[in-house]
Amino acid sequence: MSNTLTLDKIYHASYVLKEVIRRTDLIYAPKINPKANIYLKPENLQLTGSFKVRGSYYKISQLSDEEKARGVVACSAGNHAQGVALAATKNGIKSTICLPDCAPISKIEATKSYGADICLVEGVYDDAYLRALQLKDEKGYTFIHPFDDVDVIAGQGTIGLELLDQLNDIDAVIVPIGGGGLISGVAFAIKSLNPGIKVYGVQSSGAPSMAQSLEHKKIERLAGVQTIADGIAVKEPGVNTFDICSKYVDDVVTVTDDEVAAAILSLIEQQKLIAEGAGAVSVAAAMFNKVPIEGKNVVCLVSGGNIDVNILDRVIKRGLLTSGRSYMLTVELIDKPGQMLKISQIIAENGGNVIGVHHERANATMDINGCFLRINMETRDFKQIEEIKKALLDNGFKICNN
Amino acid sequence: MSNTLTLDKIYHASYVLKEVIRRTDLIYAPKINPKANIYLKPENLQLTGSFKVRGSYYKISQLSDEEKARGVVACSAGNHAQGVALAATKNGIKSTICLPDCAPISKIEATKSYGADICLVEGVYDDAYLRALQLKDEKGYTFIHPFDDVDVIAGQGTIGLELLDQLNDIDAVIVPIGGGGLISGVAFAIKSLNPGIKVYGVQSSGAPSMAQSLEHKKIERLAGVQTIADGIAVKEPGVNTFDICSKYVDDVVTVTDDEVAAAILSLIEQQKLIAEGAGAVSVAAAMFNKVPIEGKNVVCLVSGGNIDVNILDRVIKRGLLTSGRSYMLTVELIDKPGQMLKISQIIAENGGNVIGVHHERANATMDINGCFLRINMETRDFKQIEEIKKALLDNGFKICNN
Repeated sequence: MSNTLTLDKIYHASYVLKEVIRRTDLIYAPKINPKANIYLKPENLQLTGSFKVRGSYYKISQLSDEEKARGVVACSAGNHAQGVALAATKNGIKSTICLPDCAPISKIEATKSYGADICLVEGVYDDAYLRALQLKDEKGYTFIHPFDDVDVIAGQGTIGLELLDQLNDIDAVIVPIGGGGLISGVAFAIKSLNPGIKVYGVQSSGAPSMAQSLEHKKIERLAGVQTIADGIAVKEPGVNTFDICSKYVDDVVTVTDDEVAAAILSLIEQQKLIAEGAGAVSVAAAMFNKVPIEGKNVVCLVSGGNIDVNILDRVIKRGLLTSGRSYMLTVELIDKPGQMLKISQIIAENGGNVIGVHHERANATMDINGCFLRINMETRDFKQIEEIKKALLDNGFKICNN
Repeated sequence: MSNTLTLDKIYHASYVLKEVIRRTDLIYAPKINPKANIYLKPENLQLTGSFKVRGSYYKISQLSDEEKARGVVACSAGNHAQGVALAATKNGIKSTICLPDCAPISKIEATKSYGADICLVEGVYDDAYLRALQLKDEKGYTFIHPFDDVDVIAGQGTIGLELLDQLNDIDAVIVPIGGGGLISGVAFAIKSLNPGIKVYGVQSSGAPSMAQSLEHKKIERLAGVQTIADGIAVKEPGVNTFDICSKYVDDVVTVTDDEVAAAILSLIEQQKLIAEGAGAVSVAAAMFNKVPIEGKNVVCLVSGGNIDVNILDRVIKRGLLTSGRSYMLTVELIDKPGQMLKISQIIAENGGNVIGVHHERANATMDINGCFLRINMETRDFKQIEEIKKALLDNGFKICNN
């Protein structure tokens, strides 16, 4: 096939991928935003936990026999690494993945488990990238770009064909953007077949490279990126992806890390799905009305679910706090026997569940016998928190936080 | 249809449910236990977050017009409540759900959101149950039993038909058991069509009512139940379900709460799925080789995903601790300036991420200037924890935990 993106190429990718990847379900998710009919395309349930395997597999399948015999190399600490590893293994060829040595052990192990040779490089992502290019030259490996490659884009575009097949009357599709490979394929497929469907891109406000480049009508490189959605923390769009997005994407919006965290929690509670930050930005855009969706049939593409459990733990903690299901109460009291017992009784009577206590003395501003008691509680809602605080106040305790 | 369980009835339920419920995907999940070919049937992705809506809907659809006009009542603080509420609403009839007033606010809100009238009853489950029976008599409502009802069982049995349609050559199916409605339907359907397929039930070791009753060949009531898998914490099997399980279930095994927690974490990390405790017992049984699965094609039925986020938070925390990705270090030191700085440096140099510090003085057994520093860290693995501890020891610090 030629090196230009065509609908034919995306159909061809779809045919090649048919027996390899999972055709993920389309899930109706009305609770995400009751103003619209929201559907999720859960590519977090895709093999390797993200859509990336689609593009990698198609790219590798199109290599010549000679290229296949030499093998492929890629650089990534995330979803692209796992996608290339599995795609190479399923194509029966050798893959080498360069990762910075600070990469989370879980990602390294996952990549290894899909059959790749791991090349740990001292330093950060850029060091691993240079090593990958070096291996390409030294060993003749084919370098698999994470997004700026027509075959890779065609592979990701197969999601667009699936969507059109799975749901009639789609009004809009919302797609995460990092480098732009996913949305380029999806937008090209959808607009080629039905230009009436809106395609919106979403970036993190901490890494708005495509949004900014499109706004200024030229590719721009961000000085730095900082976001919970590490999978789309890309400093600069690709040449191909910038061009395709300029032509086929209706708008690119941004979401904050707090909005992403709320979307992750909502997906857990309402949909029983684990999304990573990058995968949840589309849902965040729909939840927080970043694009016009009222009364429309809208598909949010949930691009991946490879979130570190430590991050997940933080997101859940934040969600518990912001929804009144966890509370840290600080009580100032005179340090004498029985105080702790009384406070415990009051909390228990009001249905709170103490899960941590921290007792702290000696503070220049208070009575020499004074102390702070910090109590970490599980609660039902904000109403219960207020009831507990009122009961403590009624019993003469002094509460230091509001 | 008659009031006996037949394959015809399950096929009929399948026809009635066709346009109402979600035909959940079958997901290949090889990482659960590499010794077998494990597949998951994710009924956590079912409408209402559990399989319960299948049985409730079919039951309600079979009521007479007169019964439908009067409405239905049920008692539950969990999945059954949401199942009945949605099933009634979809059948266009009124439902009343009795819940104990201590039920989590999230469950009450979810049930309400599916269109039920909520009747909050002071006390515990048994009080709510009595109130439901009272409403049945007073108002002429039909009481929808959570499991011991032939139509309900037939509705749940539709999962068995789907499995046989979705995968050839199934060797075994592993199913959670609370009251036994789900496994009764699934086992009846599967054994009627292919007696060669093994059907295993799983209970929590804290609530082994069916396991014990089958062992003693008579229905027995447990004095109490205690488990993280609250959805299957049932004291006594039903008359119908006990009879069907006696005939069609090959074995019933139990799993501990720690095994369930490990299964929940594995589903999150490997499959990007949220399961509740009850929903994960089947996966726990496969992970911990509770039934003979080596080399076989095994389906684990993940029955639901309605887990309270507070519980989820605890499960994740426990998982982080038991996999070396979180550690609470206790250092005993002489309280003088600069100590904290030095410790922070050593931890940072070794890649640990401090997320909490607790400084504690005054202990009768130690030097008057001594103190404890408790440091809560995010870590990569056990190896890293050992490296940090070694570096602290090499620098003369005294570590109090192993």
